[in-house]
Amino acid sequence: MDSMTMIAIASIIISGITTSIGCIGPALGEGRAVAAALSALAQQPDASTTITRTLFVGLAMVESTAIYCFVVSMILLFANPFWNYAIAQATGL
Amino acid sequence: MDSMTMIAIASIIISGITTSIGCIGPALGEGRAVAAALSALAQQPDASTTITRTLFVGLAMVESTAIYCFVVSMILLFANPFWNYAIAQATGL
Amino acid sequence: MDSMTMIAIASIIISGITTSIGCIGPALGEGRAVAAALSALAQQPDASTTITRTLFVGLAMVESTAIYCFVVSMILLFANPFWNYAIAQATGL
Amino acid sequence: MDSMTMIAIASIIISGITTSIGCIGPALGEGRAVAAALSALAQQPDASTTITRTLFVGLAMVESTAIYCFVVSMILLFANPFWNYAIAQATGL
Amino acid sequence: MDSMTMIAIASIIISGITTSIGCIGPALGEGRAVAAALSALAQQPDASTTITRTLFVGLAMVESTAIYCFVVSMILLFANPFWNYAIAQATGL
Amino acid sequence: MDSMTMIAIASIIISGITTSIGCIGPALGEGRAVAAALSALAQQPDASTTITRTLFVGLAMVESTAIYCFVVSMILLFANPFWNYAIAQATGL
Amino acid sequence: MDSMTMIAIASIIISGITTSIGCIGPALGEGRAVAAALSALAQQPDASTTITRTLFVGLAMVESTAIYCFVVSMILLFANPFWNYAIAQATGL
Amino acid sequence: MDSMTMIAIASIIISGITTSIGCIGPALGEGRAVAAALSALAQQPDASTTITRTLFVGLAMVESTAIYCFVVSMILLFANPFWNYAIAQATGL
Amino acid sequence: MDSMTMIAIASIIISGITTSIGCIGPALGEGRAVAAALSALAQQPDASTTITRTLFVGLAMVESTAIYCFVVSMILLFANPFWNYAIAQATGL
Amino acid sequence: MDSMTMIAIASIIISGITTSIGCIGPALGEGRAVAAALSALAQQPDASTTITRTLFVGLAMVESTAIYCFVVSMILLFANPFWNYAIAQATGL
Amino acid sequence: MDSMTMIAIASIIISGITTSIGCIGPALGEGRAVAAALSALAQQPDASTTITRTLFVGLAMVESTAIYCFVVSMILLFANPFWNYAIAQATGL
Amino acid sequence: MDSMTMIAIASIIISGITTSIGCIGPALGEGRAVAAALSALAQQPDASTTITRTLFVGLAMVESTAIYCFVVSMILLFANPFWNYAIAQATGL
Amino acid sequence: MDSMTMIAIASIIISGITTSIGCIGPALGEGRAVAAALSALAQQPDASTTITRTLFVGLAMVESTAIYCFVVSMILLFANPFWNYAIAQATGL
Amino acid sequence: MDSMTMIAIASIIISGITTSIGCIGPALGEGRAVAAALSALAQQPDASTTITRTLFVGLAMVESTAIYCFVVSMILLFANPFWNYAIAQATGL
Repeated sequence: MDSMTMIAIASIIISGITTSIGCIGPALGEGRAVAAALSALAQQPDASTTITRTLFVGLAMVESTAIYCFVVSMILLFANPFWNYAIAQATGL
Repeated sequence: MDSMTMIAIASIIISGITTSIGCIGPALGEGRAVAAALSALAQQPDASTTITRTLFVGLAMVESTAIYCFVVSMILLFANPFWNYAIAQATGL
Repeated sequence: MDSMTMIAIASIIISGITTSIGCIGPALGEGRAVAAALSALAQQPDASTTITRTLFVGLAMVESTAIYCFVVSMILLFANPFWNYAIAQATGL
Repeated sequence: MDSMTMIAIASIIISGITTSIGCIGPALGEGRAVAAALSALAQQPDASTTITRTLFVGLAMVESTAIYCFVVSMILLFANPFWNYAIAQATGL
Repeated sequence: MDSMTMIAIASIIISGITTSIGCIGPALGEGRAVAAALSALAQQPDASTTITRTLFVGLAMVESTAIYCFVVSMILLFANPFWNYAIAQATGL
Repeated sequence: MDSMTMIAIASIIISGITTSIGCIGPALGEGRAVAAALSALAQQPDASTTITRTLFVGLAMVESTAIYCFVVSMILLFANPFWNYAIAQATGL
Repeated sequence: MDSMTMIAIASIIISGITTSIGCIGPALGEGRAVAAALSALAQQPDASTTITRTLFVGLAMVESTAIYCFVVSMILLFANPFWNYAIAQATGL
Repeated sequence: MDSMTMIAIASIIISGITTSIGCIGPALGEGRAVAAALSALAQQPDASTTITRTLFVGLAMVESTAIYCFVVSMILLFANPFWNYAIAQATGL
Repeated sequence: MDSMTMIAIASIIISGITTSIGCIGPALGEGRAVAAALSALAQQPDASTTITRTLFVGLAMVESTAIYCFVVSMILLFANPFWNYAIAQATGL
Repeated sequence: MDSMTMIAIASIIISGITTSIGCIGPALGEGRAVAAALSALAQQPDASTTITRTLFVGLAMVESTAIYCFVVSMILLFANPFWNYAIAQATGL
Repeated sequence: MDSMTMIAIASIIISGITTSIGCIGPALGEGRAVAAALSALAQQPDASTTITRTLFVGLAMVESTAIYCFVVSMILLFANPFWNYAIAQATGL
Repeated sequence: MDSMTMIAIASIIISGITTSIGCIGPALGEGRAVAAALSALAQQPDASTTITRTLFVGLAMVESTAIYCFVVSMILLFANPFWNYAIAQATGL
Repeated sequence: MDSMTMIAIASIIISGITTSIGCIGPALGEGRAVAAALSALAQQPDASTTITRTLFVGLAMVESTAIYCFVVSMILLFANPFWNYAIAQATGL
Repeated sequence: MDSMTMIAIASIIISGITTSIGCIGPALGEGRAVAAALSALAQQPDASTTITRTLFVGLAMVESTAIYCFVVSMILLFANPFWNYAIAQATGL
């Protein structure tokens, strides 16, 4: 098995695992935040503006960690520096 | 076992695992959010408009992490750059 | 062991694992949502229309993650692009 | 060990694992939903019609995820496309 | 080790594992449902008819998932299609 | 190592594991149900007839999952179809 | 390593594991039931007869799952059908 | 490595593991029961006779599962039927 | 590697693991019991005699499971029947 | 497989795993902080300024741990000292 | 690798693992007991003598399980019977 | 595979794992601390100065453990003594 | 790989693992004890002397288990009897 | 692979793992202590001096366990006795 195949396989495996494992935390964290927001709304409907705004800021922060994982996954699939180097080597030879 | 078979097998395995593991978190998070929305509705029926709207925004955020995983899974199955490169290599030879 | 057998085995294994692992989260999430709906109904029977409607929307969202897994599983069994490519190769030879 | 034996063994292993793992989630989710329904009935006996109806709809949704797993398991045992292909190959040879 | 022995061993192993793992969820779920029913009876003895009926329907739903596993296990032991095929092959030879 | 030894070893291993793992769930579920029954009795001693009857029905349902595992275990030890086939083969030779 | 040694080793390993794993669940379940009985006694000392009787029936049910495991373990040690067959084979030769 | 050494090693390993794993459950279960007894005593000091008696019966039941494991462990060390058979074979030769 | 070394190594490994794993449960169980005793003392200082006596009996029961593990560990180190047999064999030769 | 390929594969695997595992903790921690902020807002709407400010500082602290992981991941992909050394070696030769 | 090295390595590995794993339980159990003691002191400062005395007895019991592990660890390092036997063998030869 | 490559790979793998695993604890701990601070602010807005100050000190302590991991990770990447020694050896040769 | 290297590697690995795993329990236990002490101080500021004294005694007990692990770790690094024996052997030869 | 490389790799791996695993416990424990301190401050602002002092002592105790791990990690990296011995051997030769 040549080097390029191994780099390709490693990139495929890790790009999938990174996204899937990296989404467990944000999904649970966002679910908790949304649940708290709904309870807060039920308890204090008059503060809905502040609650909604804080919720959105918080969700954005939590979502950012999922974005990190998705970005790393995309880099591995479409802008992998090691794969590019290997292709350059293979082409140059 | 040649390179293309190995890339195919890795893509099959990871496309399934990515979707299945990536759905655990969102499903649990959404279940929690929906549960909180229902409790909030029972507690404060008058605020049902705000609660429902916040719930939908929140569910969309949580669902987005599941979508990420599904997208990566579909890319691996139907737009896999490493597979395309391998086919191009095999055809070009 | 030839390439087609290995692709077949990988597809069999992953199609089953994807569905089984992918159903744990939705089942637990839906169970929680239904439980919350029943408690909400017991607490506020007058809001049964809103509660039921919100429950159904929420269940649909949670069920969607299970559907993703089932779809990936079916694709691997009946519309597997790598398997089709391998058959095309075997036939063309 | 020939290819058909390996496909048969993989199908046997996965058909059992899919059903067994896929039943953990629904069983726990349904147990929770039934428990909530019984508490709701004890709290609000007058709403038994609504509670029972909502419970049945919810149980059906949760049970559907178990059905998915059972269906995949049955497909692997009795309508396995890879096994059928292998038999066709063996017969055609 | 010939093919038939391997299919037999795989069937033995999976038939046992399917039943044992598949019984964890239902046992816990039913235990929870029964516990909730008993608490409900203590809280509202007058509704014992409705509670008992709902409990039995719920237990039947949960038990169904255990039945699925037991059925798959029995199929693997006594109506295994791959084993039957192997015997037919061995006899036909 | 001949085929019969391997079938015997697989049967020994799985018969033990099936019973041991299959007893964890029922034991915990029954413990929970009994605990709830005792709390219910302390809370509503007058309903002891209904509580006891419901408890026994529930325990029977939970115990049934343990019985499934024990039955599979006994089948593997004393009525193993693959072992019988192997003995028939060995005798017939 | 001859067949009899392997059967003996498998029986030794599984007889120990079956008992040890099979005792975790019952011990925890009985502990919970006893704890609930003691709380119930403290709450309603007058119902001690009913509580004690229900506790003993429940403990017997839970203990039965531990007995299953112990029985399987003893069968493997002292009445192992595969070991007896192997001895019969070795003696008959 | 001869057969007797392997049987000896398997017996050593399993005798230790059986006792150690088999003691986790009873220790936790008894700790819970004792804790509940102490809370019950603090709540209802007048019922100390009934509470203590029920506690002792319960502890005996829980301890019995630890005894099972210890007995199996001792059998493997000092009355191992497979070891005795092996010694008889070695002596008889 | 000769037989005696392997028996020695297995005994060393298991004697340590048995004690360490076997101490997790008792330590947690005793911690819980002591905690409950202290809460009970704070709630009902007048019953300190009964509480202390019950605590000591309970701790002795829980400690007994740790003693079992320690005893097995010591037997394996200093009175190992298989090691003694091996030494007797080595000396006798 | 040459050294550069192995360094590339190790970097790919670890860059993905670092980001994905490193995002679980921050996502859960931030979700908890946001949930507490929303509950605090519902309880004391007048203190929204202090609450929001404290929340942002806290989220920044938690996010910093995710940033550490992302930075290590980027270093491994785009500024890997060992990869640079290997390229320098390969170029220099 | 000669026998003495293997015994040394096994002793090193197990002496460390025994102490480290064996300290998890006692540390958690003692932490719980101390926490309960502090809560009890805050609730009933007048009973500080009884509480402190009971706490010390309890901590001693819990600590004893950690001591067991430490003792086994020290025996393996400094009074290992198998190591002594091996040295005696090596010296005697 | 030469020594330098193996040291490089080990450094890459461990530098990533150290940071990612080492960030789980601090992220959860800080999330808990921030959540408690927000609840405290909602409960006692007048003590915001003391609460905020204590929170910052605490966050700094928790963050310090994440810093330790990050520092070790950076040392392994950029100031690895074993790598430097290996380079010195390779250069000196 | 000679014996001394293997003893050195085993000592390095275990000295690190012993300290790291052995610190999880004490850290959690002490955190719990400190948390309880702070709650107790808030509830009963007048008993701060008794609470602080009890806390310190308790922390010392919990810390002792961490010390055990640290001591074993230091012994393995700097006073390893097996390493000393190996050096003596190597020097004496 | 020579001895020095293996000692270097083992040191690298363990120095990272020791710090990362050893920081999970302290981070969680400190987070809990800080959270309790903040709740205590909100409940009893007047006792802030005692609470803060007790918190700092407690944090120092918990942090000490993280320090142990960090120290072992640094010893392995910069003052490793086995590495020094190996260098001395290599230099002396």
